[in-house]
Amino acid sequence: MKKVYDVIIIGGGVIGSSIAYSQAKRGKKVLVLEKNRLIAEASSAAAGMLGAQAEIDEHISMLKLALKSRAMFPSLIRELEERTGVDIGLVNKGMIKVAETEDEVVNLKKQISFHRDWDEAVKWLTTEELLEKEALLSPSLLGGMYIPNDGQVIAPRLSLAFIKAAMEYGTDFLEYSEVVDFLIENGCMQGVITATDTFHTENVVVTTGAWTSQLLAKANVEMNVYPVKGECFSVIPRVPLVSSTIFSELGCYIVPKKDGRVIVGATSYCNTFDKTVSLQGLSKLMERAGSLLPEIGSAKWEKSWAGIRPQTGDGLPYIGAHPHYKGLYIAAGHYRNGILLSPITGKMVSDMIDDVVTKEDISLYHSFRVDRKLSTKQTT
Amino acid sequence: MKKVYDVIIIGGGVIGSSIAYSQAKRGKKVLVLEKNRLIAEASSAAAGMLGAQAEIDEHISMLKLALKSRAMFPSLIRELEERTGVDIGLVNKGMIKVAETEDEVVNLKKQISFHRDWDEAVKWLTTEELLEKEALLSPSLLGGMYIPNDGQVIAPRLSLAFIKAAMEYGTDFLEYSEVVDFLIENGCMQGVITATDTFHTENVVVTTGAWTSQLLAKANVEMNVYPVKGECFSVIPRVPLVSSTIFSELGCYIVPKKDGRVIVGATSYCNTFDKTVSLQGLSKLMERAGSLLPEIGSAKWEKSWAGIRPQTGDGLPYIGAHPHYKGLYIAAGHYRNGILLSPITGKMVSDMIDDVVTKEDISLYHSFRVDRKLSTKQTT
Amino acid sequence: MKKVYDVIIIGGGVIGSSIAYSQAKRGKKVLVLEKNRLIAEASSAAAGMLGAQAEIDEHISMLKLALKSRAMFPSLIRELEERTGVDIGLVNKGMIKVAETEDEVVNLKKQISFHRDWDEAVKWLTTEELLEKEALLSPSLLGGMYIPNDGQVIAPRLSLAFIKAAMEYGTDFLEYSEVVDFLIENGCMQGVITATDTFHTENVVVTTGAWTSQLLAKANVEMNVYPVKGECFSVIPRVPLVSSTIFSELGCYIVPKKDGRVIVGATSYCNTFDKTVSLQGLSKLMERAGSLLPEIGSAKWEKSWAGIRPQTGDGLPYIGAHPHYKGLYIAAGHYRNGILLSPITGKMVSDMIDDVVTKEDISLYHSFRVDRKLSTKQTT
Amino acid sequence: MKKVYDVIIIGGGVIGSSIAYSQAKRGKKVLVLEKNRLIAEASSAAAGMLGAQAEIDEHISMLKLALKSRAMFPSLIRELEERTGVDIGLVNKGMIKVAETEDEVVNLKKQISFHRDWDEAVKWLTTEELLEKEALLSPSLLGGMYIPNDGQVIAPRLSLAFIKAAMEYGTDFLEYSEVVDFLIENGCMQGVITATDTFHTENVVVTTGAWTSQLLAKANVEMNVYPVKGECFSVIPRVPLVSSTIFSELGCYIVPKKDGRVIVGATSYCNTFDKTVSLQGLSKLMERAGSLLPEIGSAKWEKSWAGIRPQTGDGLPYIGAHPHYKGLYIAAGHYRNGILLSPITGKMVSDMIDDVVTKEDISLYHSFRVDRKLSTKQTT
Repeated sequence: MKKVYDVIIIGGGVIGSSIAYSQAKRGKKVLVLEKNRLIAEASSAAAGMLGAQAEIDEHISMLKLALKSRAMFPSLIRELEERTGVDIGLVNKGMIKVAETEDEVVNLKKQISFHRDWDEAVKWLTTEELLEKEALLSPSLLGGMYIPNDGQVIAPRLSLAFIKAAMEYGTDFLEYSEVVDFLIENGCMQGVITATDTFHTENVVVTTGAWTSQLLAKANVEMNVYPVKGECFSVIPRVPLVSSTIFSELGCYIVPKKDGRVIVGATSYCNTFDKTVSLQGLSKLMERAGSLLPEIGSAKWEKSWAGIRPQTGDGLPYIGAHPHYKGLYIAAGHYRNGILLSPITGKMVSDMIDDVVTKEDISLYHSFRVDRKLSTKQTT
Repeated sequence: MKKVYDVIIIGGGVIGSSIAYSQAKRGKKVLVLEKNRLIAEASSAAAGMLGAQAEIDEHISMLKLALKSRAMFPSLIRELEERTGVDIGLVNKGMIKVAETEDEVVNLKKQISFHRDWDEAVKWLTTEELLEKEALLSPSLLGGMYIPNDGQVIAPRLSLAFIKAAMEYGTDFLEYSEVVDFLIENGCMQGVITATDTFHTENVVVTTGAWTSQLLAKANVEMNVYPVKGECFSVIPRVPLVSSTIFSELGCYIVPKKDGRVIVGATSYCNTFDKTVSLQGLSKLMERAGSLLPEIGSAKWEKSWAGIRPQTGDGLPYIGAHPHYKGLYIAAGHYRNGILLSPITGKMVSDMIDDVVTKEDISLYHSFRVDRKLSTKQTT
Repeated sequence: MKKVYDVIIIGGGVIGSSIAYSQAKRGKKVLVLEKNRLIAEASSAAAGMLGAQAEIDEHISMLKLALKSRAMFPSLIRELEERTGVDIGLVNKGMIKVAETEDEVVNLKKQISFHRDWDEAVKWLTTEELLEKEALLSPSLLGGMYIPNDGQVIAPRLSLAFIKAAMEYGTDFLEYSEVVDFLIENGCMQGVITATDTFHTENVVVTTGAWTSQLLAKANVEMNVYPVKGECFSVIPRVPLVSSTIFSELGCYIVPKKDGRVIVGATSYCNTFDKTVSLQGLSKLMERAGSLLPEIGSAKWEKSWAGIRPQTGDGLPYIGAHPHYKGLYIAAGHYRNGILLSPITGKMVSDMIDDVVTKEDISLYHSFRVDRKLSTKQTT
Repeated sequence: MKKVYDVIIIGGGVIGSSIAYSQAKRGKKVLVLEKNRLIAEASSAAAGMLGAQAEIDEHISMLKLALKSRAMFPSLIRELEERTGVDIGLVNKGMIKVAETEDEVVNLKKQISFHRDWDEAVKWLTTEELLEKEALLSPSLLGGMYIPNDGQVIAPRLSLAFIKAAMEYGTDFLEYSEVVDFLIENGCMQGVITATDTFHTENVVVTTGAWTSQLLAKANVEMNVYPVKGECFSVIPRVPLVSSTIFSELGCYIVPKKDGRVIVGATSYCNTFDKTVSLQGLSKLMERAGSLLPEIGSAKWEKSWAGIRPQTGDGLPYIGAHPHYKGLYIAAGHYRNGILLSPITGKMVSDMIDDVVTKEDISLYHSFRVDRKLSTKQTT
């Protein structure tokens, strides 16, 4: 019996799940193929920050995209929670990028100017204002940039909700199903082949994060998406320590989740898929977190983990159709912004598959096209 | 800097580890590449039976190979334990294949005749003799075939000992390193490419179990190795229940491990890589184990798991050089006999790489050659 | 420094947490002392059924209490979820007590008559109606009693929500704090002594479940609360199998939780605190569940566990003040109804401490008084 | 049916197990009662150092006892491993107490003089000698005291071997069996009462570690044994980092176990039974370990845990008969030396029960008698 789908998505992380949900809601028969378990890589390792303004401080298209996606969250979360009963843990208490050095003060104030064009609410907090807002922060901090509209979610729950909701619309999810080859005829996608089966479709979406280059090589498509490992840990404080997310550009963020745990992240190692956690990574994160928020020392240790984030040559995700093969779409390379960008990515890919991209969107989406020229390597 | 090895082994299970140990001991510089964690698939899921005579009752070459490998264990285990300090848990208390029906009695007596040519010790036990030997077996059993020389080990510990010993001889093991392509020049292996690196060598050994077909497809080598999932569980009895391994051909074995736990296995599902455990699989195993050894019901539940075993079209493993590519060796498809056959497989592949196969061995090894004609599909 | 509290509660399970929440909300300074971890015993092991009518079919006072407590859930859950953000997983899809034998048909129809006085909605379903409601139930069932108003929650989440909410009202929770003695002067409670500390109060509430007799012995109070071990397991079906809770009096219930897992329980062993799970217990539960709902066999195995439920001589919980010591309250012996009865127990004990029990309540509460004459041992 | 035993031991840790083994080997019918799981507290949390000379540097009786116990290990381990098949992981590669400050140099040299009377082998290593022995230690260390005869074992395995060996001699072990009272007649032990049962014996041994004071209070025996929490963590280095155990008196030890992991311990918090691990505890241990052995940073994180060690008023364990009750023996308060002292404690208590203490031993054992005058509080 021939198994035919409207769309086949390869990869069971937050990007694949979001696209599946979007397409399924539009009435498509969707199949998601995951080589191991669903939500097992970067999507479950993420701290869940929606750092549209905290993380993006230079590239205008990226900021526009991030703000667009951030704006989709409130109604999307409501919709998903009602439909699936999954508590996604949305918290809207803002982020504070703190300054430990005078250089950072200068830099953050520059960022405020940049963001003021987009969000009046962003503002500078003096040390005094900072401590008024978050009393347990270190008094040696020199102030901070307050971003009231950057919230956060419990990352694996967002993916779980996309999956459950997509299932209700009839989407099939197959775990332990690695795609070993593509079926291509006359330059048109015809399906995919797993180790044990063949599935037919005219639309294939590759959402395999840091594993994207290897998969696309099977179709002779070259794409520079490389892994950046990040280590995190979580603790459980006896009483709440902070209400906003605290963010330092010297390599540390502290995210107080809705369920009471606090996630501290993240280190950065390029070009490795090794998910073990190093003692030095943990030790450095602890030292950093303790210098921002001394009282975190009294919290109970929970656990540590590492995620493999997909980075690209120019630091922008690839989202779009592949020019050589009709029906091949790619959505990968979201690096640290996969959770934040998942709603807009779902919409973008869906619009492209359904050929309903608006004029306004086209110009924005152009920056993320798959065949863009790779300008410069971005260091991480 | 060019990374050059004498031998690169793909796959960090018991077969790859045994070959690595064998080659390293002979002075070779060896690299083992594992796409996830070492000892993570069938090699750790196995019950560890060395069932040379319990499992093989028809194919003469296979039996010869199994007996040869079984005979290597005592000195190998001693060597590995002394070198690494790992307790491999060798138990030499034999196996009993029990009969629940008259048909099985007939069948087992036929097996005894077959095996008598090879091992005088194999013999029939009446129900009375059975219960004298293992007092807690069900008195409704009709007798059994006693195989005193089929022992057992703690499966993941054997692999661990191979790995540690190979490391001491200088072997490198890289986890999270998936081979995405082969380097081949003029039909000669020149190395392998992982997602993040390139390694050079003139000898590549593929030991990737049930994942072998997909990997070899990258070199345009077609090979029929397919997955057969098996579910198991373990319990901890308050007092020892049996000393021998109990084996029923109606689909159940009970293995009393040296560390006190008892492993019960295994179901069989073809063509799936899904490692989840089904309720019906567990339920059936429990019912089967309870009818052989009623007292097992009083034992404490420990855990369940599933392993993906590599089966081949004709039921024999592939062990040998590939005829099209100089320097490409394959050792896969050991199905339920990977632990048992790991020592001889290590020796075979090593002998082939070093071109020191004896005349006597050549004729035996012929049966397992990589380019043998696939006769008939074996049902499982 | 003297540590003085309005109320000290011994026991960090659902009963203790509910009382803590109730008292804290009324403005009291409350301390909860737990000898190990919070929510570690029966409260986390429970399947979370609110079986006011499913579980209680004889004792009128108990039924009244259960209905009163069940009625408190909707607004309580809303209040707790809003306050704490914990998703308690309330599901209001009813229970079905199914009949496998003609005797059960007769018995269940008798129960319907009994309950009809209290809830018009209870009704008999023929096999056909049963299958119309729950298509995957075994067609060999002879019908069932449908109880639309018996819902269910995720048991450990209810306790967690009580605890978090009580904390917000200023309650202190101390783990690893075993009470080793009581401070009593002139027949009045003055405080409690742990292994490392002394705490003062005039009101002590003992909510230590199956461990209550031993604790009260320290105050020379004799009380017959004994342990009944129950084993459970959970599975994760690929698609929902049932929407109502399925309940068989031959020893099995199947509870489809809001988060997708299905809990199957429970065996019953008297007079043991041993929390290990036996193979025979699991095996029997699987066989029972499979005969009610054959398709459950295809679900994925998740895990098993055991809880130690507190039963009493006459099968009714003890809730009330102790007649010999002023300020000593006891709330224990809720057996399988601890989750269901936690709201009303919180209110009862709070009302007694605050001396605001209404006339109407007094007559109901009388049945559960601590010094009632123990009539007959109830078998389990 | 009356359950009568020659000896009942309360507590299933290393001390209770050792006494059980010793008594069972002498032909006694022994029962061990454990309130939770066997080997669940300090006995499994210990790093397993046999620091007779590393840990004891002042009290002569304690040192004598420790040396006597250390000397028992080689033959005991052999005996237990042969009998039970458990690999106890004895490593005899010595300890090095390193000096980071000039004060420590002076102090350690004083210790060497003290120990030289007992063991010629103890000697000072200069920084150069230190690095020759352990190349990866920090070159900023000022030297160290080398103790070649202080080995180490895998702590939980030692208890497991005692238990398995005692079982083979017919000892009963009951888990989840908390003693709630003692049966005493005319000042003679007659048995113990658990929550669900009564057991008769004329000899009761209390080996309940940090929980001893509370238990003995039930017999109106006052005894000052208090809890000292210690946090540890383990890592798995890719290659061995050190072969000896490294010990700093500024609060850190690094123990390279036979199975490849490295244990780092331990913090010290008095008067708490709370087994949670704090972030600051971990952070401090990491910082300390990194300053002794910088390369440990590259090791893989495994896990962290805490144990509750039993300390006494004067820092010496209580081992002996209680003067008020005939048949009551106590063996508790071994603080950080429980593993090391378990063999001699087993022998001592056994000798006392059997009334075969030699003249020579009497004078040594006197220091550890139960009714000794508590002189001064030892700080920790």
